[in-house]
Amino acid sequence: MAASRIYAEDIPSRALAGNPLGDPSTRQVLVYLPPGYDESRRRFPVVYLLASYPKTGASFLQFEAWEEPLQARLDRLLEQGRIRPMLVVLPDAFTRLGGSQYINSGATGPYQDYLIEIVHWADRTLRTIPAKSARAVAGKSSGGYGALRAGMDHPIIFGLVADHSGDKYFEMCYGPTLPRFLRAIGEHNLERALSDPIGARPHNQAFFDVMEVLALSACYSANPASRFGFDLPVDLVTGEILEKVWARWKAHDPLHRVESNADALRSLDLLFVDCGRTDEFNLQVGSRLLHRRLEGLGVQHSYEEFDDGHFRTSYRYDVSLAAISRAFEHDD
Amino acid sequence: MAASRIYAEDIPSRALAGNPLGDPSTRQVLVYLPPGYDESRRRFPVVYLLASYPKTGASFLQFEAWEEPLQARLDRLLEQGRIRPMLVVLPDAFTRLGGSQYINSGATGPYQDYLIEIVHWADRTLRTIPAKSARAVAGKSSGGYGALRAGMDHPIIFGLVADHSGDKYFEMCYGPTLPRFLRAIGEHNLERALSDPIGARPHNQAFFDVMEVLALSACYSANPASRFGFDLPVDLVTGEILEKVWARWKAHDPLHRVESNADALRSLDLLFVDCGRTDEFNLQVGSRLLHRRLEGLGVQHSYEEFDDGHFRTSYRYDVSLAAISRAFEHDD
Amino acid sequence: MAASRIYAEDIPSRALAGNPLGDPSTRQVLVYLPPGYDESRRRFPVVYLLASYPKTGASFLQFEAWEEPLQARLDRLLEQGRIRPMLVVLPDAFTRLGGSQYINSGATGPYQDYLIEIVHWADRTLRTIPAKSARAVAGKSSGGYGALRAGMDHPIIFGLVADHSGDKYFEMCYGPTLPRFLRAIGEHNLERALSDPIGARPHNQAFFDVMEVLALSACYSANPASRFGFDLPVDLVTGEILEKVWARWKAHDPLHRVESNADALRSLDLLFVDCGRTDEFNLQVGSRLLHRRLEGLGVQHSYEEFDDGHFRTSYRYDVSLAAISRAFEHDD
Amino acid sequence: MAASRIYAEDIPSRALAGNPLGDPSTRQVLVYLPPGYDESRRRFPVVYLLASYPKTGASFLQFEAWEEPLQARLDRLLEQGRIRPMLVVLPDAFTRLGGSQYINSGATGPYQDYLIEIVHWADRTLRTIPAKSARAVAGKSSGGYGALRAGMDHPIIFGLVADHSGDKYFEMCYGPTLPRFLRAIGEHNLERALSDPIGARPHNQAFFDVMEVLALSACYSANPASRFGFDLPVDLVTGEILEKVWARWKAHDPLHRVESNADALRSLDLLFVDCGRTDEFNLQVGSRLLHRRLEGLGVQHSYEEFDDGHFRTSYRYDVSLAAISRAFEHDD
Repeated sequence: MAASRIYAEDIPSRALAGNPLGDPSTRQVLVYLPPGYDESRRRFPVVYLLASYPKTGASFLQFEAWEEPLQARLDRLLEQGRIRPMLVVLPDAFTRLGGSQYINSGATGPYQDYLIEIVHWADRTLRTIPAKSARAVAGKSSGGYGALRAGMDHPIIFGLVADHSGDKYFEMCYGPTLPRFLRAIGEHNLERALSDPIGARPHNQAFFDVMEVLALSACYSANPASRFGFDLPVDLVTGEILEKVWARWKAHDPLHRVESNADALRSLDLLFVDCGRTDEFNLQVGSRLLHRRLEGLGVQHSYEEFDDGHFRTSYRYDVSLAAISRAFEHDD
Repeated sequence: MAASRIYAEDIPSRALAGNPLGDPSTRQVLVYLPPGYDESRRRFPVVYLLASYPKTGASFLQFEAWEEPLQARLDRLLEQGRIRPMLVVLPDAFTRLGGSQYINSGATGPYQDYLIEIVHWADRTLRTIPAKSARAVAGKSSGGYGALRAGMDHPIIFGLVADHSGDKYFEMCYGPTLPRFLRAIGEHNLERALSDPIGARPHNQAFFDVMEVLALSACYSANPASRFGFDLPVDLVTGEILEKVWARWKAHDPLHRVESNADALRSLDLLFVDCGRTDEFNLQVGSRLLHRRLEGLGVQHSYEEFDDGHFRTSYRYDVSLAAISRAFEHDD
Repeated sequence: MAASRIYAEDIPSRALAGNPLGDPSTRQVLVYLPPGYDESRRRFPVVYLLASYPKTGASFLQFEAWEEPLQARLDRLLEQGRIRPMLVVLPDAFTRLGGSQYINSGATGPYQDYLIEIVHWADRTLRTIPAKSARAVAGKSSGGYGALRAGMDHPIIFGLVADHSGDKYFEMCYGPTLPRFLRAIGEHNLERALSDPIGARPHNQAFFDVMEVLALSACYSANPASRFGFDLPVDLVTGEILEKVWARWKAHDPLHRVESNADALRSLDLLFVDCGRTDEFNLQVGSRLLHRRLEGLGVQHSYEEFDDGHFRTSYRYDVSLAAISRAFEHDD
Repeated sequence: MAASRIYAEDIPSRALAGNPLGDPSTRQVLVYLPPGYDESRRRFPVVYLLASYPKTGASFLQFEAWEEPLQARLDRLLEQGRIRPMLVVLPDAFTRLGGSQYINSGATGPYQDYLIEIVHWADRTLRTIPAKSARAVAGKSSGGYGALRAGMDHPIIFGLVADHSGDKYFEMCYGPTLPRFLRAIGEHNLERALSDPIGARPHNQAFFDVMEVLALSACYSANPASRFGFDLPVDLVTGEILEKVWARWKAHDPLHRVESNADALRSLDLLFVDCGRTDEFNLQVGSRLLHRRLEGLGVQHSYEEFDDGHFRTSYRYDVSLAAISRAFEHDD
C-alpha cells in the first residue's frame, strides 16, 4: 500500500474575495491523504484541523524540534490501530493581523464561511464521506476556539468537535493582555503595526502583544466607521476598558454562547474539550467552567485536564484524534 | 533651634480592641516633630502619612539604600523653604494579612475608625492646629487609597488629601492579580498562609501573591459566615471570578465612589493625585480616569504624571508636601 | 521566464552513516533555484545557508507570521537588482540533541564533513560555478557559527562567509546558560531528555535549557568514555564548572581560533559579520571582539551592528546576501 | 528581670576618617543587650552580625512584614533555651555604592579595619567577654562573605564564624551579573549613578544592576589611577571581560582564599556555612565547593542546605545562633 501523502491545492475563495484587510483570497489548502488513498475507491471521514494564532495550516506539517509532525503522527496512530483511515484538511485562515479566529467579521472577512467553503470543496474534490457524522473540526488555542464555534454555528455541517485549550472565559484569558497591550503601544506604533507588520521592527514581545489585540479586535469588534476598521477594547489615551467594546468581545466568548447553542452542541456525536492545568493564558479556568455548564445543560462531552501548559502540546491530538476516530460512524 | 525629632508612643486603641484577626490593639504611633517644637508654644498643622502595603508607619523612618528617609526629607524641605513647619504622624495599620487599606472591615477591624482615633489622640497630645484646614492625609499605593478614602469618608476631619499611585480602577490594578493568585495557591497552602504567615515558607513571589489577595478580600469582602471570615473573589476549584464578591470589591473602588462622594471631595482645600506613567500595577489608567471624573464633577484637584513606575518614588512627597504646605491655612 | 523553485532531494550521506546519536544519514537537501534556472544552461554561484539551533534548512522555507520566507526574499532581492541569480542550498544538520554546530564531533558525527559532502553533491548535481570564489556559506546564530567555522576550516572550499549573530565569546554567550542548566536539571531528567527528547514533557523553558547544554557538550566536548558520550561542562552534583571541559569548549570559540586561522580568513573574498546591539545572548560583545581582532590581524571584513536582538532578524539577510552577491566574481 | 533592649551609639571611626567615597566616618552602632543586662555585672559573649548588601545593621531591627525582627528572635531563642544570653552588635558598613563587603579597599575604605575597631569599642564600652572564644561574626549574603573573610583574616579576634549564603564562587554568583550590568548601563548613566545615586532615577532593576557592579568593583579592584577610583571588570565599549581585573576579583573569592587561610579556619571554634538549594545567585554551588574544600583541608565545620532561595531566610539565624551559642566557651 502506498504511503500517506500531502495533497496541496490553491483554491480561489469566493468568501474571501475583496476581504477588508486585503489578504489573499486564493489560498493553499493542504490535505493529509491516508496510506492507500490513491489505490482505493473508498470514501473517508474528514477532520478539519485549525491552526492556532498566528499560524496557518501548513504549520502542522513543518518541522519543529522534538515534536512529531502531523503526517508522522497520523501514520503512527493508524499503524498502532488508534485511529482509522481519515483525511485531515488544513485550512489557512491567516490574516495580516495574524488570524481570524475562524469566524466571520466585517473587519477581517467571513472566515467561518470560508471554512464551510473548504468543506464543500473537499466534498467535491476528494473522496470524503459527505456527512456530518463523518466530519470533525478540531484545533488548539485559536484553532480550538474556531472548532468549538464551528460546532455551535454549523452543527448541520460538523458532527464532531475537539477543542484543545481554546480561547474562552475572556476575562481571564484576554483580561491580563490588555495592560500588556497598553505598555506595548508605548514601544510600537499602532498604525505602522497595522499597515506594515513585516516592517514594524523589532518583532519583540511588545510587537506580538500589539498584534494580538489588533487581531482580536478585528475579529470581535469590527466597526467600519472607526479609524482601524474595528474598535479596540481600551482607550488609547487613558487605557480605560471600553465596556461597550468589551461586551462585544464577550458576546463571542464560548461561555457566553454555550447556553443559546446548547441544542447545536447536543446534536454533536462528539464534543471533546481539554486544557493544560498550568495554561499560560489561564484557559484551564474557562475550560472548567465550560465543562460545568455543559454538564448543567445536559450536553454530553468529554473533558480532560493534563499536566502541561499552553505550548508544545500537540501530543494531545493523539487523544482527540482517537476519540474522533471512535466516534466516526462505522459505515465505511 | 533644636533639631527635628521623632516622638513615639504606644497607644491602646479602642477601635482595634478585639479585632477579628487578633492583631495587637496597642500600637506605636510615630510623629515627626519639626525643629524647635519643644522650645515653642506654637501649634502646627498635621499630615497623617499612610504606609503602603505591607508596611507600617515606621517604614518611613527606616534606612533604605539611596532613598532619603522621611525625617531628612522633611528637614531639607523646611530648610529649603519648600514647606512650613508641620507635624507628620505615622500610624500603623498593619494586619496579619499585611494591611487594612485604612478602611473599616468586619474581617480585619475598623481601621478607618482607628485613623480617626489617632487624629483625636494627636489633637489631645500634641500642639496641633485642631482644624480640618490644617489636617492632611497622604500616602502611596494602599496608603494613597487610604488617604483618598479618608477624604471621601471624613471630609469633616481632613481638609487636604494627597493620593500617590493609590489603588483604583480595580479591573486593571487587581484584575491581573487574580490569575497570579490562582497559580500561587498551587504552591502555597491558603490555610497555612492565613494562620501562620511567618512560618509559611518560602516567602517567594507566590507567597506575596497569596497574601495580597487574602488581605484585599478581608478588606473588601468580609463575610463572617465564610471559612476565612471573608470571601475570595475567585472560586478556589475552578478559578472562576465570583461576580458577587468582585462587585463588593468594586464598590470600594475610588472610581466607583467618586460621584457619590463628590461633595466631600469638593469641600477639600487640596486634592492632589499623581501616578507614574509606567506603574507596574497599571495605576496610571485609574489615575487618568479619576482625573477625568473629577474634572467632570467639577472637583478642583491637582493631577500629575511622572516618568517612573510604582516603586521607590518617595521623592514625589517633595511635590505633595509642598502642595499641602501651601494649602494649609496661614493662620498660625 | 519561469519562476524560482525549490528543489528537494534525499541524499544518503557517507559522512553521517553510523553517526553516534543514531540520527538519519539520509537527509533532504533543499535548494532555491532562481527564476529561469531550468530554461538556461548558465552556471550559478551558490550560497550554503545554515539554520540556527534547533532548526533545519527547511525552516528557511516555512511560513512564519510577519516574516518574509526565504524564497520570496530571494525573488524580491533579485527583482530589486540587489542580488544576482544564485543558488541557495539549505542543508539539514539537525541531531537528536537539536543541532551539530556544523562541526565534526565524535559524539554527534562529522557534520562539517557532511557540509562539504553537500557541496560536492551540489557541484555534481546542479549547475553551480564550482569555485571557491562562487561559493558562500552563511547563517545566523549556530548557523553563523557554522559558517565562520567553515570559512576557517575550509577556505579552499568557501570563498565568502557571512556570520549573523553567531556563537562566540563563550564566556558571555554560554556562561549565563550554565546556572540555568543547573536549575533546569532539577525539573527534567537528563537521561530521559537524552534518550527520548520527544517524550520528555513538558517542553518548557527548562527543557530547552537542558537540551542546549546537552547539544553543545556533544559538539564541543565529546568523550566516548563518559556516560553520555560527551562531558558536561558542569559537575551535576555540585554545579562546579569543570575547567578542563570548559577549556575544550573554549577551544571551539571563534575568538580563540581567529588568530591561528587568520590566513584562512585573509584568503576569503568576503567576511561579513553582524550582530544586534541588544542580543539576548550577549553576542554583540563577542562580535565586537571578533571585529577588533580581525582588524588587529589585518583581516579584511565587513562589520555591522543593528538595533535589534537575537530573534526574528532574517531581514538582515538582505544585507549579507547583497554583499555576497557583489563579492561573487563577475565571470558568469 | 528587665527586658532586652537596643543600645545605640554614634562612634567616630578612625579607620573611616577621610574614606575615599566621602561616606560618613561617624556611624551609629546598634547593640542588642539581653534581658537583665543592666541589672547584672556579668560579662557576655558577643556576635557581630553583618548586614547584606545594600543594607546597614539597623535593617536587622526594622519591621518587615511576616519576618521576625532580630530583637524578638533573640528574646524568643533565649526564652526557648536555644541560646544563652549574648550581646549582638550591628555595625554599619554601608557606602555610597551600597556596601563594602566588610573588607579593606583603597576605593571604599578600610571596612574590615573598621569592624575590628568596633570590636575594640565594644570590649571597652560593654560588658563583653573580651576573648576570641566568646566572639562570633555572622551574616548573610555580603554579610556572610564579610564574616568568613573576618574569620580568615582575623582568627585572633574571632573564634566563631557563621556564613549564610555568602558570596563565593564568583564565576557563578557574579558571572551572570556582568551581561546584566552591560545592559543596565544602556539605561543608566554610570557617572550619575556614582556621583548622585539618590537622584539617578528611576531606581529600577537596571539601577541596582549598575550599583552592584560599581560596589563590587570598588571593593575588589580599586585603582586610584582609574576614572572611578576602581577598575570595572568589563570594557564599557565592547563588553569584554577584562581578565586582569576579573583575576583581582577572584583573588577575593573565599574559594580562592580557603587553602592559604586553612590554618586560620582550623583555629576557629565554629565554622558554620549554609545555603538555600535554589539560591537566586547560584550560591549553593560555591557553598558545596567550599564544603568540599574544607573537608579536603581537614577544616572542621558545619554545612547545611535548606529548601529556599536567597531572600527572606532570616529564620536560618535560629540555626546558626544556636550553634554559636553552644560553641561559646562555658566559662561565664
